Amino acid sequence: MNKPVNIEQLEVGFDIPAAIGMDASEIQTPALVLDLDALERNIKKMGDYAKAHGMRHRVHGKMHKSVDVARLQVELGGACGICCQKVSEAEVFARGGIKDILVSNQVRDAVKIDRLAQMPKLGARTICCVDDLDNVSDLSEAAQRHGTQIECLVEIDCGAGRCGVTTTPDVIAIAKAIDAAPGLKFAGIQAYQGAMQHLDAYEDRKAKIDIAVAQVKDAVDGLKAEGLECDIVGGGGTGSYYFESTSGVYNELQCGSYAFMDADYGRILDKDGNRIDRGEWENAFFILTTVMSHAKADKAIVDAGLKAQSVDSGLPVVFGRTDVEYVKCSDEHGVVADPDGVLRINEKLHLVPGHCDPTANVHDWYVGVRDGKVEALWPVSARGKVF
Amino acid sequence: MNKPVNIEQLEVGFDIPAAIGMDASEIQTPALVLDLDALERNIKKMGDYAKAHGMRHRVHGKMHKSVDVARLQVELGGACGICCQKVSEAEVFARGGIKDILVSNQVRDAVKIDRLAQMPKLGARTICCVDDLDNVSDLSEAAQRHGTQIECLVEIDCGAGRCGVTTTPDVIAIAKAIDAAPGLKFAGIQAYQGAMQHLDAYEDRKAKIDIAVAQVKDAVDGLKAEGLECDIVGGGGTGSYYFESTSGVYNELQCGSYAFMDADYGRILDKDGNRIDRGEWENAFFILTTVMSHAKADKAIVDAGLKAQSVDSGLPVVFGRTDVEYVKCSDEHGVVADPDGVLRINEKLHLVPGHCDPTANVHDWYVGVRDGKVEALWPVSARGKVF
Repeated sequence: MNKPVNIEQLEVGFDIPAAIGMDASEIQTPALVLDLDALERNIKKMGDYAKAHGMRHRVHGKMHKSVDVARLQVELGGACGICCQKVSEAEVFARGGIKDILVSNQVRDAVKIDRLAQMPKLGARTICCVDDLDNVSDLSEAAQRHGTQIECLVEIDCGAGRCGVTTTPDVIAIAKAIDAAPGLKFAGIQAYQGAMQHLDAYEDRKAKIDIAVAQVKDAVDGLKAEGLECDIVGGGGTGSYYFESTSGVYNELQCGSYAFMDADYGRILDKDGNRIDRGEWENAFFILTTVMSHAKADKAIVDAGLKAQSVDSGLPVVFGRTDVEYVKCSDEHGVVADPDGVLRINEKLHLVPGHCDPTANVHDWYVGVRDGKVEALWPVSARGKVF
Repeated sequence: MNKPVNIEQLEVGFDIPAAIGMDASEIQTPALVLDLDALERNIKKMGDYAKAHGMRHRVHGKMHKSVDVARLQVELGGACGICCQKVSEAEVFARGGIKDILVSNQVRDAVKIDRLAQMPKLGARTICCVDDLDNVSDLSEAAQRHGTQIECLVEIDCGAGRCGVTTTPDVIAIAKAIDAAPGLKFAGIQAYQGAMQHLDAYEDRKAKIDIAVAQVKDAVDGLKAEGLECDIVGGGGTGSYYFESTSGVYNELQCGSYAFMDADYGRILDKDGNRIDRGEWENAFFILTTVMSHAKADKAIVDAGLKAQSVDSGLPVVFGRTDVEYVKCSDEHGVVADPDGVLRINEKLHLVPGHCDPTANVHDWYVGVRDGKVEALWPVSARGKVF
């Protein structure tokens, strides 16, 4: 890639790491690279699993924030639509053609509620979560103002310790209020146990989900006794989907990380005690990085630091290498221990980031690679959409 | 801010958190907020200090990635220009009118070198760092190809353990090669001791910088003996600038975080044992966040999680409050312990982020506030510029 660049033609604010058809070795770094074969296999596998178990799969769009990946999940993986966490994200997916969108979060601010109430005009079924009676009237008023319908799930906190109510009477009270509110439709329950997804041992995760399932079953039964049917009983992530799928209570999965995988998720163990990134799922998501200094014999410096990833769940792992190790991350640099001095200046490494979601959120582009060539350039469509 | 929003008029990919003249209470969250009075006082104070000590101040643009903040630092703080870490960042600052730019990093990739060599055409003095003889010929070739001049500093690793050579003979060898290379100009030494900036105790930082100063002095003297004068002997951050300024060796400071402050820097101590955010510098940089769930009496959930900040250097601190504490951060949520249940839905909090640099890098806008009103909207001009 020693082609001359004409800076006069470069737009400020516009840096694309590759061009379609380019050799993968020419990608500008640091960049997010997707192994398209692995990505498609992951998507197909989870889609097949959900179908075989009679589960709807609403994929988690907040993980990748990409309209292109979401479309692939719908087309290849049979996903019914997406969930995401913010109204501004949801708008991007709605405009991108996704027809069934759950904001799996509370929407409380007046401006955000107003935007949410207009989402059906973009052609998307619009669903959000509620955990407080006071929110019902605000949502109802906005939906009526815009002549639209917002479907509402009552969120149950089944162990994550964030949003959501914890008792069946609270669930029923909110569900009744939704059911009675003009412009709103009661659509079921949101019960995602986020806190257990990263427990390493399968049995530890199972113990947590058993508690959640019992809690959700009690709520579903209680609602039914009041004449309120749940169209959606949703939850289930990459570390737990087999539990929800066989619970007899949940009917919708909301997995995200399975499609990309990351180092932190990869460390959790399946029921046979194997890491889930050693068979269950493939690493499809990498930070491509380049060695840009090697002034010390046993230490290479690469160009991917904190501006190219989030290290909240640990440092990235160098993919396919045991001879070198990413040992330190600063703003713009990674320090890679290279005890045998094997790395060369401008050599590229594939890093598996510690946590895929916030890592995707710092980049503007995905570079899709197949057979060593750049096949796709996908914007991180909802990057920075935090409202 | 209950004004109706017309979604048909909203551009995808374009979310601005505020409008100029708006009341600060109406800012959409999570958003980066700058206290303009505090920011200006910080900038003026460091500028006055540098001037009083006969030091050039080349402010670190990689911290804020904002052309507007950089201009303020030049105009109000007397900065000579900026340093930043990537070529793509440098281009943004050059196009934004900054006239003296140091890429305080190695540039090794052929495309990046080609871009760097074109930067003088944007009207900016262009400087980069070198820590490897092989790099000199690549830089020289590119500068000749474009008919420009790249000034080069030899980078010394004076304790940070990243890029840079460690011995005076290595410094001299590279400096001579630069001096002899067509299209290049030897401009001095880069010696930023990044690893000591966050040591809490003043004396611990001083001990580290004493080692660095001795190392740099040896190199400067060795270069002088070879007839090579250093226009720039650069280094010095928010945790050390008083040491470099009085060293008799350094002539250029490169401070970044002083302008904004963050929770991690705030914890380090000045020579009297006081935290540096209790007098030396003011907190000017906040994540404004909103309570969006409070379903548990003692726990409020706010809308700023990992997509709104980097937690590499610890969790954010709730500014001006001792009754509540940000205790947990997940992708989209922060958990705020609220033992007395004082927080209300839609109440806003100012968070001081753990680490300002990578936190700024996930946002698109700074909202500048003075006297409770939005006075400025500044793009994070070089956000995501990692090439």
